[in-house]
Amino acid sequence: MKRIGILTSGGDAPGMNAAIRAVTRTALANNIEVFGIHYGFAGLVAGDIFQMTSETVADKINRGGTFLYSARFPEFAQEETQLKGIEQLKKHGIDALVVIGGDGSYHGALRLTEHGYNAIGLPGSIDNDIPYTDYTIGFDTACNTAMDAIDKIRDTATSHQRVFIVNVMGRGCGDIALHVGVATGADAIVIPEEKYDIKAIAETLKQGFANGKKHGLVVLAEGVTDAETFRKELLEYGDFDARANVLGHMQRGGSPTVRDRVLASKMGAYAVELLLEGKGGLAVGIQNNKLEAHDMLDLFDAKHQGDYSLYSLNKDFAK
Amino acid sequence: MKRIGILTSGGDAPGMNAAIRAVTRTALANNIEVFGIHYGFAGLVAGDIFQMTSETVADKINRGGTFLYSARFPEFAQEETQLKGIEQLKKHGIDALVVIGGDGSYHGALRLTEHGYNAIGLPGSIDNDIPYTDYTIGFDTACNTAMDAIDKIRDTATSHQRVFIVNVMGRGCGDIALHVGVATGADAIVIPEEKYDIKAIAETLKQGFANGKKHGLVVLAEGVTDAETFRKELLEYGDFDARANVLGHMQRGGSPTVRDRVLASKMGAYAVELLLEGKGGLAVGIQNNKLEAHDMLDLFDAKHQGDYSLYSLNKDFAK
Amino acid sequence: MKRIGILTSGGDAPGMNAAIRAVTRTALANNIEVFGIHYGFAGLVAGDIFQMTSETVADKINRGGTFLYSARFPEFAQEETQLKGIEQLKKHGIDALVVIGGDGSYHGALRLTEHGYNAIGLPGSIDNDIPYTDYTIGFDTACNTAMDAIDKIRDTATSHQRVFIVNVMGRGCGDIALHVGVATGADAIVIPEEKYDIKAIAETLKQGFANGKKHGLVVLAEGVTDAETFRKELLEYGDFDARANVLGHMQRGGSPTVRDRVLASKMGAYAVELLLEGKGGLAVGIQNNKLEAHDMLDLFDAKHQGDYSLYSLNKDFAK
Amino acid sequence: MKRIGILTSGGDAPGMNAAIRAVTRTALANNIEVFGIHYGFAGLVAGDIFQMTSETVADKINRGGTFLYSARFPEFAQEETQLKGIEQLKKHGIDALVVIGGDGSYHGALRLTEHGYNAIGLPGSIDNDIPYTDYTIGFDTACNTAMDAIDKIRDTATSHQRVFIVNVMGRGCGDIALHVGVATGADAIVIPEEKYDIKAIAETLKQGFANGKKHGLVVLAEGVTDAETFRKELLEYGDFDARANVLGHMQRGGSPTVRDRVLASKMGAYAVELLLEGKGGLAVGIQNNKLEAHDMLDLFDAKHQGDYSLYSLNKDFAK
Repeated sequence: MKRIGILTSGGDAPGMNAAIRAVTRTALANNIEVFGIHYGFAGLVAGDIFQMTSETVADKINRGGTFLYSARFPEFAQEETQLKGIEQLKKHGIDALVVIGGDGSYHGALRLTEHGYNAIGLPGSIDNDIPYTDYTIGFDTACNTAMDAIDKIRDTATSHQRVFIVNVMGRGCGDIALHVGVATGADAIVIPEEKYDIKAIAETLKQGFANGKKHGLVVLAEGVTDAETFRKELLEYGDFDARANVLGHMQRGGSPTVRDRVLASKMGAYAVELLLEGKGGLAVGIQNNKLEAHDMLDLFDAKHQGDYSLYSLNKDFAK
Repeated sequence: MKRIGILTSGGDAPGMNAAIRAVTRTALANNIEVFGIHYGFAGLVAGDIFQMTSETVADKINRGGTFLYSARFPEFAQEETQLKGIEQLKKHGIDALVVIGGDGSYHGALRLTEHGYNAIGLPGSIDNDIPYTDYTIGFDTACNTAMDAIDKIRDTATSHQRVFIVNVMGRGCGDIALHVGVATGADAIVIPEEKYDIKAIAETLKQGFANGKKHGLVVLAEGVTDAETFRKELLEYGDFDARANVLGHMQRGGSPTVRDRVLASKMGAYAVELLLEGKGGLAVGIQNNKLEAHDMLDLFDAKHQGDYSLYSLNKDFAK
Repeated sequence: MKRIGILTSGGDAPGMNAAIRAVTRTALANNIEVFGIHYGFAGLVAGDIFQMTSETVADKINRGGTFLYSARFPEFAQEETQLKGIEQLKKHGIDALVVIGGDGSYHGALRLTEHGYNAIGLPGSIDNDIPYTDYTIGFDTACNTAMDAIDKIRDTATSHQRVFIVNVMGRGCGDIALHVGVATGADAIVIPEEKYDIKAIAETLKQGFANGKKHGLVVLAEGVTDAETFRKELLEYGDFDARANVLGHMQRGGSPTVRDRVLASKMGAYAVELLLEGKGGLAVGIQNNKLEAHDMLDLFDAKHQGDYSLYSLNKDFAK
Repeated sequence: MKRIGILTSGGDAPGMNAAIRAVTRTALANNIEVFGIHYGFAGLVAGDIFQMTSETVADKINRGGTFLYSARFPEFAQEETQLKGIEQLKKHGIDALVVIGGDGSYHGALRLTEHGYNAIGLPGSIDNDIPYTDYTIGFDTACNTAMDAIDKIRDTATSHQRVFIVNVMGRGCGDIALHVGVATGADAIVIPEEKYDIKAIAETLKQGFANGKKHGLVVLAEGVTDAETFRKELLEYGDFDARANVLGHMQRGGSPTVRDRVLASKMGAYAVELLLEGKGGLAVGIQNNKLEAHDMLDLFDAKHQGDYSLYSLNKDFAK
């Protein structure tokens, strides 16, 4: 193996740059050349490919976003488009690939592996919704961004005896809401994975106020519904001074935390290790604190398992 | 003068606690007792009043929100309710008052002064919309909170070549949008004080992309319209990948910045100075870096003047 | 069991308040009364004990430090002093105890257990040096605090082509230096657990500059030596423009991160669970993502195992 | 005037990039070409000069440090070296210059002006020690960085009843210590501009503890002495548990605050305005909230005036 390509695909996540750096430095340390591909699979097909040196990835570890940019490129599902991508790999002498993104990116990665270009997938996504990994690159940072915002909202809630319903990201996964809800002492956490009882939530809030609580907080995963809809629903069960907040896209940016930089660094190095062992079509994950690699095919049928003990834990705390 | 009361009214703002502390410590240093009033004018009327010591305000300077809580209490506009408030002042032996809040709070403060209870107003509001002061307590912190959020949004915008329309607070005032727009290098700033040309904004964005710019950013004051409405309007002038974000209530919270803590401290001490001079019905402000006190009556007819040179400055930068 | 006591002992750590809250809310949810003990074992002996309600722990989860305060109290090693502490437990009707602190606190906890007062230990320390737990409460926050500071130092190093030697905390443990060193892309990490070769470090720095690197960074665990001593040593191997920085006590404070709040919450609830099962003399830890409880006696002979793979990983990155 | 050069000199300061951007965008908007000079006057002499476009300064406004790098180059005081610098200006067709740095940079700027190359100076320094300007670019950010660090230190001080002596930067100027001392509620602020009475400081600390204060804080400007020396001195007047902390170089880095970005933007545009008016040898400042330009010569005899009312204000608060 002489040359590795790297691309980032799908929604971006803090820590992607740290992962790109880790792949690059590890490959170079093993005398393998490294080529960066801009704009994910779209850039691969367009041939937006350039050589990277140790210098290229300097001063990147603390930067949010991805300096290789990213794109969603559903067209890559078509064989024709994949073949164009492979032509570009051939043209640039690239033997193997590291794909950093959500598990949607793994389909394209697997296709390339099947065509003889080993690809390893690294879980880059703030949503933490990738199977066979306890944490994705970007999840810890997104959680802390959301938590900081809610801590600020709580300053104001305390002053006004309000109920704040705060939408956090996660697409169909409730992990951000779960961890952030526990971290902010939410009165209620609402996630797709657990049926919610709005009447009970209303009761918890009323009980809290009766017990002298000065504010109410509901952390709501976007995968369930939007904050304004939930707010209206809640008002049917009580005369609350309730406000909806949608934290939005800031959750995808920002300088990565220590956890995300370290995780990205370990995973990036491990990806190169796997390629050096001649492996491909594997998705890297961290499970029970150990790095693992699973067949990408297995991921497509599986579902990420979050730590749902946090859900009942928070209910006990809110009493 | 033997006893000063302090209350915070209206929307809360970071730095209010620092102001309360400054009033308290300065009063105590002058052998004047200090009483805190919870929940603004509502708490005054309800008699929710307690004595404060130096200890009460310890470890408060870095806390967001207001530990005296706050409330909007439009009922205080009625003479009857004001008289009840005055009874409470009498009952607790309070001679004078410091009112920290938006200029809406100044009406109540002026009524009390007219009844013989000198009141000094301190401009506590994130909106920076109070006349005769370049800056309000809380404005600097709110701007930095918004800026940090937008810096994070820009990480993701850069990755996706998107246009982000971000709503910031300010009620009818464009100052937050103005300062934050300049600080985040926005392609366009939209504020109530200046007519906006959406076609020109669309052109600026298109021109920027044509020149290689990787993202577009519009900072939109909530006083003009909401982000989603603006987004739809913008789409009539170009095929943009545009997203709306509303930063929301986090802008009212958080630990105050140095500027807000120092400003609050200076203003709090100054308020006590004015009361010691037997003055009342005055609103404290900072103009051209000097502390000033204006008759509250003058404020009611006046309008805050922002630094609109920033508006044209940012237009030049966005070319 | 009717009444649980809680105390925090030793150096404080962000997340301690979240742990206190978790113990309190879980106990109350199980109809167990909760008493807080100020100033660790010193306060226990002095009888500085008070009842806590759900309200007492409200709005604490995001606060750094410990609202129960802390103290180092070596006198508690003496039987006499322990007996005084036990008298206080008796006097206040406390049946069991949760001790949050470094493993030094566990000795006292074990003594109380032996006297019939079950005590569970929670690992509260920024140093991450407690055996049988991958992470202590406070470690993640301290690492992020150090990383943020070094990110800022790097801004200036880049401008001046300097080498910064930065002391981070950890007492005798290198974990903070290890994780922070990887997260900041340090040219060298120096920890007590690994012999360091200063000549090789000097070569790495020179090689980096020759390859166009604009700055050099050495992350140095305080357990090895202080930054100024190391700096002088380094200058014997090259004509570096080197500056020493000691990050200091800020690493012990600050609002806890999501990880620390969630970990503290899980551990706090688990401690109460163990006490409800009639257990005592156990130290809670998290290993491979699972909560565990070990006999405190086992900890006294053991040594914390860090993730030393990060050490060689970072060396590869620095080439 | 067809071509402007920009350089940053001396110690770096957050906001320098925003200033470079403002100069560049304003010049380009006036059809003037812009050339960046790396490494201050050293780079000028070496001819390390390159053309800049609007793109060059994109995504820079939020970056700490200076992307033009910086250097201290005392050799530029010599006529010979200045002439070499002028040759480079000629060679690159540069007509005028914007110099961003401390007032030490202004000497070189004045020499160039005298030789026919108009130069305008912008005050870039965290120390706030430049005459004829209330604020320098970088001061607000440095203050907030120091304040955040001290807020974290206070979390731990509260737990341990300690006295922390914290060194902040400023070289010979006490402004950072002054503003940060007020913002952190320090028991004492020690600056070069005011004689300090260590016995009185010791008394203030003891009195505070006697009144129930849980911690003590002294904010010490580096221009007076170092924290360890002061700590030892303090121990002669009381049996304090005192710790020294030196915040160090982190104060020079970090993403600039809103104030610094806005100030830098206004000053950068103003510098180009002055050059367009054919002016040179002027130092830009902001006084009483208005932009001003002073003859550089006047600065060399003058001394920056800080807001020393804050000094006595904080003394009153600490009683």
